[in-house]
Amino acid sequence: MKAYDDLLTRYADIRKLGLAGSILMWDQNTYMPPGAVEMRGEQQALIAGIAHERLTSNRMGELIRECSSMKDMSPEQASIVREIERQYRRASAIPERIVKELSGLEPVATQRWVQARKMSDFSIFRDSLEKMLSLKREVAELIGYDDIPYDALLDEYEPYMKSRMVREIFGNLRERLIPIVRSISDAVEPGDESARGDFPIPKQESFFRMILERMGYDFNRGRIDVTAHPFTSGSMDDVRVTLRYDENDIRPGLFGTIHEGGHALYEQGFLKEHYYTPLAEPISLGIHESQSRLWENLIGRSVGFWKAFFPLLQEAFPVMKNRNLEDFHGAINIVRPSPIRVEADEVTYSMHIMVRFEIETELMDGKLDVDDIPQVWNEKYEKYLGLELRNDSEGCLQDIHWAMGAVGYFPTYALGNLYSAQFYDRALESIDGMEESISRGEFSSILGWLRENIHQKGKLHTAEELVEKVTGHPLTEDHFISYLKRKYSSIYGITL
Amino acid sequence: MKAYDDLLTRYADIRKLGLAGSILMWDQNTYMPPGAVEMRGEQQALIAGIAHERLTSNRMGELIRECSSMKDMSPEQASIVREIERQYRRASAIPERIVKELSGLEPVATQRWVQARKMSDFSIFRDSLEKMLSLKREVAELIGYDDIPYDALLDEYEPYMKSRMVREIFGNLRERLIPIVRSISDAVEPGDESARGDFPIPKQESFFRMILERMGYDFNRGRIDVTAHPFTSGSMDDVRVTLRYDENDIRPGLFGTIHEGGHALYEQGFLKEHYYTPLAEPISLGIHESQSRLWENLIGRSVGFWKAFFPLLQEAFPVMKNRNLEDFHGAINIVRPSPIRVEADEVTYSMHIMVRFEIETELMDGKLDVDDIPQVWNEKYEKYLGLELRNDSEGCLQDIHWAMGAVGYFPTYALGNLYSAQFYDRALESIDGMEESISRGEFSSILGWLRENIHQKGKLHTAEELVEKVTGHPLTEDHFISYLKRKYSSIYGITL
Repeated sequence: MKAYDDLLTRYADIRKLGLAGSILMWDQNTYMPPGAVEMRGEQQALIAGIAHERLTSNRMGELIRECSSMKDMSPEQASIVREIERQYRRASAIPERIVKELSGLEPVATQRWVQARKMSDFSIFRDSLEKMLSLKREVAELIGYDDIPYDALLDEYEPYMKSRMVREIFGNLRERLIPIVRSISDAVEPGDESARGDFPIPKQESFFRMILERMGYDFNRGRIDVTAHPFTSGSMDDVRVTLRYDENDIRPGLFGTIHEGGHALYEQGFLKEHYYTPLAEPISLGIHESQSRLWENLIGRSVGFWKAFFPLLQEAFPVMKNRNLEDFHGAINIVRPSPIRVEADEVTYSMHIMVRFEIETELMDGKLDVDDIPQVWNEKYEKYLGLELRNDSEGCLQDIHWAMGAVGYFPTYALGNLYSAQFYDRALESIDGMEESISRGEFSSILGWLRENIHQKGKLHTAEELVEKVTGHPLTEDHFISYLKRKYSSIYGITL
Repeated sequence: MKAYDDLLTRYADIRKLGLAGSILMWDQNTYMPPGAVEMRGEQQALIAGIAHERLTSNRMGELIRECSSMKDMSPEQASIVREIERQYRRASAIPERIVKELSGLEPVATQRWVQARKMSDFSIFRDSLEKMLSLKREVAELIGYDDIPYDALLDEYEPYMKSRMVREIFGNLRERLIPIVRSISDAVEPGDESARGDFPIPKQESFFRMILERMGYDFNRGRIDVTAHPFTSGSMDDVRVTLRYDENDIRPGLFGTIHEGGHALYEQGFLKEHYYTPLAEPISLGIHESQSRLWENLIGRSVGFWKAFFPLLQEAFPVMKNRNLEDFHGAINIVRPSPIRVEADEVTYSMHIMVRFEIETELMDGKLDVDDIPQVWNEKYEKYLGLELRNDSEGCLQDIHWAMGAVGYFPTYALGNLYSAQFYDRALESIDGMEESISRGEFSSILGWLRENIHQKGKLHTAEELVEKVTGHPLTEDHFISYLKRKYSSIYGITL
């Protein structure tokens, strides 16, 4: 047990460095003066370097080997050792040369991407992207994989997930989504006037704060700030969300808030006794996204939720006075194929992801050439969403991910949709009167269920195990599809 | 030269860790959610521990020895090696056991001090303070000293300064201050009505921002926030100040701003080519304080300054409309012996420091017992300032310094006053029409002079050398005394 204790202590320090880094990142995105950007980059690189050095140290390797052969480990201990070993193995696989090349390329590629997107000229970004992809291919080879190189990258964001499984589930999803999207597109779209108008920012701020409080977000261990792109950062006792406000449309701020609130509840939901171990860490980005989307879409865009909050919305904003719940519910659930992922509704969203997933895997396999990305991208948007894109800015240049080296990240967004619906259905079965509670603006039962079944488990299980354990069967698109059919049949008055 | 380069690289990393820590400290004092305090403490301890480990590593010692014997060093190189050696020596002298005892005692002692001050009951703080003093005595013995133990502690905040010199200069200062304080006390005090009234906070904020900009503070490399106790943090390209506002009195915010602005200009004033070396570090707390006080008192409380800014003050705040410059100048220069150091005027301020210095040195020498502090404190306040203190909250419990282990810190405040007047007189001789420029609200000549002669030198010289080099003679109280006499003779219409 001495080795185990030593391992935990060392791991805790690595985690603490990461958390210090996340405060520096938060500061950089909120309050840091612009002239400090170079200094901040140096601080972050140094702290990340120290953490990497400690994680990949020989002593760490020895301790992990010693602990892996321990007898009579509890399931918790076994998971802790497994997860530390996983991180150790992945980090140790990549030599310093590549780490440095990657961190040197990132800002350059990002800058090129910004320019390329601004000019809508893919050629500006092309060389950086090719370089990045070639480095990521090298990383994949070094880490190793069973099936295709992409697996090694996907595994960073969605541990233990295989691209074969993603491909299969995305295939099914696509086949079932296409007719739904088509039927909805043929139906009469709800108007969005009832979500537009004059929404003064200070009022939005206090309204959103009230919603977060009602959701169960702990302001004693968190705070709200404003950024152009909302995000959640930190963990455990310091989990901060950022929001944005549109003075003329309540939706961006509102659903940004509920979405980030869902992420934040996950990070605030770990048990104190697990702090600084993998049992106080999110399982995967997909599971993380399941929490944000469960709150944002399944709860936050439901009629029930607005039964509780629509009167409060009317009270807070005079412009809402003569509007009704039904119209507003339509306005927050408009489905319309559109070129930009981050603006997509929950029905078409997964299609955006499939385009990216297919292109990413083919790029990694060498089946697709960088130069062909724009054309292939546009063809897929035409095929999956019936859209003719006007330029690459609203096409293959819209996302920052590849410029930052995040290849294998995209699928986690769509997986989040699927996980969220599957969890929600199970919660509905388990909790007496859950939707009635939501209609009264009471979330303690659903939050309690999420805490007990998901948040407090940390990385005890893999995502696959967790889904089986919690819902009784493997991940499937069934729940998500049923949810969409149920909901949009009612909103659009059609049979899906 | 390889050893020298290696030394610089290692030192730069240590400095970067310190700067990351200062961001975490800033965050803790501005925006951190209260529940995160324990996590933050752990992060800070870890980062400080890593920096300490690196500074005191064997390799660091070897490199320093190698570099110290380098031939043909430039003065800059020699200072860099000297200063790194100094830090290495001090840090290496203290074993980990004591570092941990100190960092464990600090929060406890601080908590006790907070309670004690609240209840005005010295006995609550007594044991913690005794423990702290005994640890600091141990530290002093480990570091070593020529004369008395206190020297080893003073040297942390005012490097190379000896308590013998402080005692001598404080002795002279006291003899010359006492009659000045007495004469002023006997004279008619200016009213303070013209600095009171309705000063809306948003207006104060933009007024203070304007003043900082005029002073030359670079907002691209800094920012303003609000805290109960204003402070300046960071260095080089990220130097942040915090302010406070009193809605009914412009003075606390105003002079807090100019004071912190003076500190910030020092930290922003290092040369890019020196970043991360001791040449981009402040010499001492006394020199730091000389910058804040030069701006706050010698410039900010001068008639000339208000010739430029009084009309703008009147424009910004309607309450100022029918008031005049002369009254306002009186109101910002009221001299009155009072029990609280942080509220003291520039004339009586040094007396507060002498009380603390005398008590500190006697405590360290074992000539004074902890239990006798309250009585001795009160006697000295009676003797030096003619005050009868009502309780220990406004007496020996008013400052946090000892609870935090900052023994030897206080003298730097009073030294700052002396340095500032001596520098100011020299600047006046060197710069054509300096005070005329100030009267037009133009500070580029004085800032340029400070940059060239002080800021950009970093730790090239010791404080003692710098004063001699810049002003032509050693530190003396003469300039400060003449300044006070000149200024207060005029304001109080008396002969000093």
